[in-house]
Amino acid sequence: MIIYGKNTVKEAILANRVVHIVYIDNKFNDKAILNLIAEKNIKITKTNKHELNLLTNNGLHQGVVAKVKNYETSVLDILFDGKKKNIVILDKIVDPHNFGAIIRTAEAAGIDALIVSSRGQVKVTPTVTKIASGALEYLPIIEVNNLNNAILKLKENNFIIIGAALEGKENFNLVNDEFSKALIIGNEGVGISYLLKKNSDYLVKIPMKGKTNSLNASVAAGLLIYEMMGLFKKE
Amino acid sequence: MIIYGKNTVKEAILANRVVHIVYIDNKFNDKAILNLIAEKNIKITKTNKHELNLLTNNGLHQGVVAKVKNYETSVLDILFDGKKKNIVILDKIVDPHNFGAIIRTAEAAGIDALIVSSRGQVKVTPTVTKIASGALEYLPIIEVNNLNNAILKLKENNFIIIGAALEGKENFNLVNDEFSKALIIGNEGVGISYLLKKNSDYLVKIPMKGKTNSLNASVAAGLLIYEMMGLFKKE
Repeated sequence: MIIYGKNTVKEAILANRVVHIVYIDNKFNDKAILNLIAEKNIKITKTNKHELNLLTNNGLHQGVVAKVKNYETSVLDILFDGKKKNIVILDKIVDPHNFGAIIRTAEAAGIDALIVSSRGQVKVTPTVTKIASGALEYLPIIEVNNLNNAILKLKENNFIIIGAALEGKENFNLVNDEFSKALIIGNEGVGISYLLKKNSDYLVKIPMKGKTNSLNASVAAGLLIYEMMGLFKKE
Repeated sequence: MIIYGKNTVKEAILANRVVHIVYIDNKFNDKAILNLIAEKNIKITKTNKHELNLLTNNGLHQGVVAKVKNYETSVLDILFDGKKKNIVILDKIVDPHNFGAIIRTAEAAGIDALIVSSRGQVKVTPTVTKIASGALEYLPIIEVNNLNNAILKLKENNFIIIGAALEGKENFNLVNDEFSKALIIGNEGVGISYLLKKNSDYLVKIPMKGKTNSLNASVAAGLLIYEMMGLFKKE
């Protein structure tokens, strides 16, 4: 597939992804990336902005585009190695900007994997890889046919399931730190589906003080992920 | 200007913005919005999806588009009424998705106003109003010619200036809750400019545990705004 943007291409090379070819703008002069390409003996073609715009469907390519091996999805079983895990389940996110930003935040926060549905969920498109800014190289994406079955299997393996919903509680201390945790983020329009909500151990809600009663999905995911991971600990 | 999307149009009407005309899709059937339009005697034109796509430059209009009075910006002086304030300064955000999402989060978190630069900052475009999802009706946007002069004036008025930067500290308790606060969020590519950083009272950094060393600007803004507002308080 096609990926683009400095961070995304750089991280793909650093992570030893198979890179078939890199297309760069004639004026591209990012030394770090050019050195990496030379070092790894990657095939390179110099071209112009117009060609890069065409290749990326007018994406924000920053002068560098690469044809790489597709991002493969993982299976649920990688989560059951006996180690404590923190994961995020996406209940059908449709906006590639949201999906990409959530991947980036999840990797930055130390989340172990993302679970997505094989239907109704935006795929790993070039836009998603661009917005994820390299994070896709390090965060396993687990694709399942049925999110509810996945949740039942997580529960069998002692995961605590936390759903984000308007009717939830604003307090996260309910969640015991000793267990593996799975946080469910709902679709941009309709939130978490009934069945997933019903099978959650806890429902949590982001506190709001203004007239706005919901947040952008990637912002909401960011807040909940950081809370779940205890990353804003006070002294 | 043109605005679109259910939430954005609904909040504009509810907030008594001047609405010149509403264009709806022939199949549009959101009762709450249709009742509001009738109640307020707003001129309405039924049209088709193709026309709405043209009007919104293929925006996600959800079948409803409105021509409304422009969103006016405010001046700095509204902040100096003697009451404690919490504000956010954007150091040249260029992506309309980020700007819109930050407006939405700031309003939800109870931020009093946003300060933006008159140059180098994306304007309030139709896309921004769509992503802000109605929050623009309630959050004053203060436009200034020189962000640094604005910061100096805020400091004269006893605001504590908090800059978000990679070299910052990961602890927010440094910030005393008794004072007015201004949080600076930097540009997507280069972060906060040198002068603004230099004039900050504190620099703060979002903790990260993965290989990703920065977040999407609207996600980062969301985390810092919620921290500054103390909205994730533990029992």
